[in-house]
Amino acid sequence: MSVLDTEIASQPQLWRQMVELAPAYCDILPSPGANVVLVGCGSSLHMAEAYAALRRRTGAATIAVPSSEATMMTLRSADMVVAISRSGTTTETVVALERVAGKVRTLAITAGSGSPLAAAAEESIVLPQIDERSVVQTRSATCVFELLRATVDEAGAAEAISAAEVALGASVPDIAGVDHVVFLGSGFSIGLAGEAALKVLEMSQVVAEWYPAFEYRHGPLVAARPGTVVWWLSPVDRRLFDDLATAGVRQVEFAFDSAGSLVMAQRFAAALAIGRGLDPAAPSGLPRSIVLD
Amino acid sequence: MSVLDTEIASQPQLWRQMVELAPAYCDILPSPGANVVLVGCGSSLHMAEAYAALRRRTGAATIAVPSSEATMMTLRSADMVVAISRSGTTTETVVALERVAGKVRTLAITAGSGSPLAAAAEESIVLPQIDERSVVQTRSATCVFELLRATVDEAGAAEAISAAEVALGASVPDIAGVDHVVFLGSGFSIGLAGEAALKVLEMSQVVAEWYPAFEYRHGPLVAARPGTVVWWLSPVDRRLFDDLATAGVRQVEFAFDSAGSLVMAQRFAAALAIGRGLDPAAPSGLPRSIVLD
Repeated sequence: MSVLDTEIASQPQLWRQMVELAPAYCDILPSPGANVVLVGCGSSLHMAEAYAALRRRTGAATIAVPSSEATMMTLRSADMVVAISRSGTTTETVVALERVAGKVRTLAITAGSGSPLAAAAEESIVLPQIDERSVVQTRSATCVFELLRATVDEAGAAEAISAAEVALGASVPDIAGVDHVVFLGSGFSIGLAGEAALKVLEMSQVVAEWYPAFEYRHGPLVAARPGTVVWWLSPVDRRLFDDLATAGVRQVEFAFDSAGSLVMAQRFAAALAIGRGLDPAAPSGLPRSIVLD
Repeated sequence: MSVLDTEIASQPQLWRQMVELAPAYCDILPSPGANVVLVGCGSSLHMAEAYAALRRRTGAATIAVPSSEATMMTLRSADMVVAISRSGTTTETVVALERVAGKVRTLAITAGSGSPLAAAAEESIVLPQIDERSVVQTRSATCVFELLRATVDEAGAAEAISAAEVALGASVPDIAGVDHVVFLGSGFSIGLAGEAALKVLEMSQVVAEWYPAFEYRHGPLVAARPGTVVWWLSPVDRRLFDDLATAGVRQVEFAFDSAGSLVMAQRFAAALAIGRGLDPAAPSGLPRSIVLD
């Protein structure tokens, strides 16, 4: 088993730990009614988007914005700014947080203890146990999501653990001839679809897109071709599914909780990479953290 | 000149008309401080995203959500819901508006007079002159954006008109060997980047993605290859530009206002389609409006 495989396989156990830890952080995590802006880049941003969608479902004003697009105006509109970064060193995220330090409540969530992000935040949740040796993030991202999810959707967080176990035991979808993957989501699974697409892009260099499921019908589906896999992270829309099937497009159905489907997508992305002679854990030219001077 | 070419070429003149019309609609368009939720699908959604970013820049709470993802909770959080649809018949958009009729102020913006959307809205702006014969939207979408833009960024709206004229007179970037296009934006040009990508997808079936410019560095750039064109709708980040150039990735620089760059992208998408033996105005299998029963 490669290091990446081990990291992917550790998710159910670490997610369980996150769900158990969540109550201990309830004083520093966003309170139910708080207006929250989350910032992050790449995988961290996708996890922020998924959590934001779950919070909006409870009626709480919450948005997730790329750190690089978070202006002072966006950040000041919140009661609380939550910044996510695996390393805690991502320049744009550190800068976004520093911009509002002392003006708005700030929280950093990171695996990097003693990191600039934790230093810039009023409060921080530091989780060294979720860190990875792989450049490509898998469990570090999903663990942050599970921690946050447990505070707004405890039943969903618990269900995700068994779904991940199922995903780890099941066969990976066939990679033969795949040169384009489209992940579809709805609600919180749009963020997970973005993360799944990023795994395929990063690990395998196969182009991957993601859409809110019903948006895919409004144009982008015309680019589906025999090498395309359409992967449903939300329940299947039967009409669209049948139209795509008739057109010869391969599809992967949402088979368990969307977070379980993301674990399967991680395994699929790694298999695609290996099939193309690439190292899925360490894409050429991609550093662990983007630090700009 | 094809019908599509004529529609693309009509943009500067129609945009001028939109800028002139805007003051007449100021009583029904969102007032400066209003908290606004915009809904739409496909091109309409991308225009809504671009306008939402411009309004946020002025400090006004504004979000754009896909009509299919607009729950009652999202819509009720606004002072006003603005729905955009070329035909005024798009099922998800009509349903989203009907959901809050009588509970929140609603405005429909459409080219379709006598449409279900206009009927469902408290107020409507009906612009039959922006409608198109092509299935793929070009001017109908950008005209709505220019109308809205004129209310929050008059100077930008005026600049866009001359930028579009420049784009119509300039040479289209080379299409030889292009099989993947990535549009990068920042602020309001992220929405325009999404629209540019949708044009490439719809017209040419070439896979196109879009990202906030700095997000592209956080992973997706590893999938850039010799057939990729990276197209900047925001000012170039010199370091990323140089890295991509060194890796042999072709790039198109932001050369005028982003809306002018979108006009150039429409022409590029049409040229790509023709180069692949496709009809850019009417992609196979794509209806003018998605009406579900």
